[in-house]
Amino acid sequence: MALIVQKYGGTSVGDIQRIRKVAERVVRTYDKGNDVVIILSAMAGVTDELVRLANEASPSPDKRELDVLLSTGEQTTVALLAMILRSMGYNATSLLGFQADIRTDAQACSARILSIGADRIHDLIKKHQIVVVAGFQGHDENGNITTLGRGGSDTSAVAIAAAINADSCEIYTDVDGIYTTDPNLCDKARKLARISYDEMLEMSSLGTKVLQIRSVEFAKKYNVPVHVRSSFNEEEGTMVVNEDAEMERLVVSGVTCNKDEARITLKKVPDQPGISANIFSPLADAKIQVDMIIQNTRTGGETDLTFTVAKGDFKRAAEISRKVAKEIGAVDVLTGDGIAKVSVVGVGMKNHSGVAATMFSALAKENINIRLISTSEIRISCMIEEKYAELAVRVLHSAFGLDSES
Amino acid sequence: MALIVQKYGGTSVGDIQRIRKVAERVVRTYDKGNDVVIILSAMAGVTDELVRLANEASPSPDKRELDVLLSTGEQTTVALLAMILRSMGYNATSLLGFQADIRTDAQACSARILSIGADRIHDLIKKHQIVVVAGFQGHDENGNITTLGRGGSDTSAVAIAAAINADSCEIYTDVDGIYTTDPNLCDKARKLARISYDEMLEMSSLGTKVLQIRSVEFAKKYNVPVHVRSSFNEEEGTMVVNEDAEMERLVVSGVTCNKDEARITLKKVPDQPGISANIFSPLADAKIQVDMIIQNTRTGGETDLTFTVAKGDFKRAAEISRKVAKEIGAVDVLTGDGIAKVSVVGVGMKNHSGVAATMFSALAKENINIRLISTSEIRISCMIEEKYAELAVRVLHSAFGLDSES
Repeated sequence: MALIVQKYGGTSVGDIQRIRKVAERVVRTYDKGNDVVIILSAMAGVTDELVRLANEASPSPDKRELDVLLSTGEQTTVALLAMILRSMGYNATSLLGFQADIRTDAQACSARILSIGADRIHDLIKKHQIVVVAGFQGHDENGNITTLGRGGSDTSAVAIAAAINADSCEIYTDVDGIYTTDPNLCDKARKLARISYDEMLEMSSLGTKVLQIRSVEFAKKYNVPVHVRSSFNEEEGTMVVNEDAEMERLVVSGVTCNKDEARITLKKVPDQPGISANIFSPLADAKIQVDMIIQNTRTGGETDLTFTVAKGDFKRAAEISRKVAKEIGAVDVLTGDGIAKVSVVGVGMKNHSGVAATMFSALAKENINIRLISTSEIRISCMIEEKYAELAVRVLHSAFGLDSES
Repeated sequence: MALIVQKYGGTSVGDIQRIRKVAERVVRTYDKGNDVVIILSAMAGVTDELVRLANEASPSPDKRELDVLLSTGEQTTVALLAMILRSMGYNATSLLGFQADIRTDAQACSARILSIGADRIHDLIKKHQIVVVAGFQGHDENGNITTLGRGGSDTSAVAIAAAINADSCEIYTDVDGIYTTDPNLCDKARKLARISYDEMLEMSSLGTKVLQIRSVEFAKKYNVPVHVRSSFNEEEGTMVVNEDAEMERLVVSGVTCNKDEARITLKKVPDQPGISANIFSPLADAKIQVDMIIQNTRTGGETDLTFTVAKGDFKRAAEISRKVAKEIGAVDVLTGDGIAKVSVVGVGMKNHSGVAATMFSALAKENINIRLISTSEIRISCMIEEKYAELAVRVLHSAFGLDSES
């Protein structure tokens, strides 16, 4: 007897047949005597289709109205699942964001959850109802419908699990769990049984798309154990939980690769106080996020400054950089996008020395040149030439003992 | 400067191009200095498609959940119109049923409006916003989403017009207005400039599908002038208003024809007190609505009892009737569905004698046999053989001087 939150993503509810499969799984959990609260995404592709419709209506659709439109996607799936559960003889009730009192800020299209009034959900559970909540949506203090941004249903699920004090939060998706690396890049990738919140945060920000990063932040903040697993089989997936002793024995839990960045170098920047602000403030004003930054001071009071941005922001960032370079007297701007960032992540790094050395020598052995390095407490990232990306992932996966035995 | 409510039906908002046309018309009204509140239906066909999806999910979809699903149709169109209006540089805000505080009873799928909290709409109007309200939907006292049944957006529009004390309520549809009869049956049909609420109620209950009957009841109760007109041209349509002297000069305003009924006759029913209740109570229990009833008492204490029901209820009604006939000792049950009901409607009837005589002799002149007759204060209906329906309509249209001069 437990209170279990289950979240099913877009591919899991892609059509009526699949929603029926979800219903069967929900019922299996309920029939074991558990209370269950289900969070759903929109059917796969529906949100994209609604965005297409909005763009046909307006070149830059009003965000408040876009949220009204987008929220119909989850509204559709929760009604359908509740219908199917009722036709199977179970009591089920759907709740939209405002009905479940998922209160957010007023930032349309990327709202943040402020609070969840759990009373309505608790009332329904007490009446032995299966509660089906629309993910991705909430309402602001003026009663406007808001949405949480891409992948927001994960955040809905974890936030609701925290609000109703659930025993576990299961995220059903189209993959089996969190892997040591992308199985498409490395056939020796292994599914992790457990991963810490902090490692998952690093993996998510490095491009592992299984969980939305804000859902992991929520899970960490409220200590919600998250079970990432497949909706297409019965296997155990990966538990995302607080660090424990076993995790710390492993030096590295995962290797990631991100090819979605491009590089900009300002050559011979005068080495004066405040010069960095001159460069990065205009980028921040243009809402361009800078990822890695490296500065090489030369002799003679000049410095080369290199940084990376998302490929989508590259053109604008390059333009701004050229303008700034002129103003501050830099000699030249070099740009390039044939790069990839490979990273190793692991809470064990905190207690192990030599991780960086192992990483660099593994890459060196394959003659892979490192262009940029950045680190956090539990991560080391290296920028390399894009063509070596897959090789680098495999080499690092093996060097840190992650390869599966099969 | 007036406060104008405009309602656009499903064909008027059938795709983005048509919603753009609606926006242009809205803006023309707004630019003349009027305050405007727009009520929209779902895109034509969308509600049917959602019902199909629900039936795929469940053989008898739960009605509460069906309302959650169906309400997405209007949610989509109001968001799209508001986006388009904003992209044209106008301030517009969409409101869903619960946001406009359209409070209904809890009768899912056929809820009745109980009250409308006009504050939110008034606030937005004060800020010179164009308010775009989702028709067809409301919420009950427990915050459940409800819908008003087929054609419910008309009722939404009239109820909102009453609640905000609008100067007029324009119903934009795919026909030019209310005609003296169906132009498909009679090429001399004329568009009426004005029609009374009571006449419109009779016409709607007789199958004229331009306005939902409950919207006319609302309009009558709150004395809301309703202007039925086409969204595809600029012509004046038909005003539905209180009776006035001019209307009363006309004896008959319209001729209608309904082929959607079938006939059931119980032969030789014992003529005893309470026998009618024995027959009609089981039909009422089965939620079957009986339309016309006629009883011919014979000599010898026996009577033939004939009544009509909608074709959709015919099979069930016939079964029940056969069962009842046995119980009460009726000799036989005859059924038949090749019938049509032609009616003449007009407030002028109240002050004119001889309307029935004119009707019967016009039909007799063409050798059209009358099977059943029923009347109200402003209507006479005759049941005839279906094959004579079109001829009867043309003959009556002409006999009451309704033919257009062209």
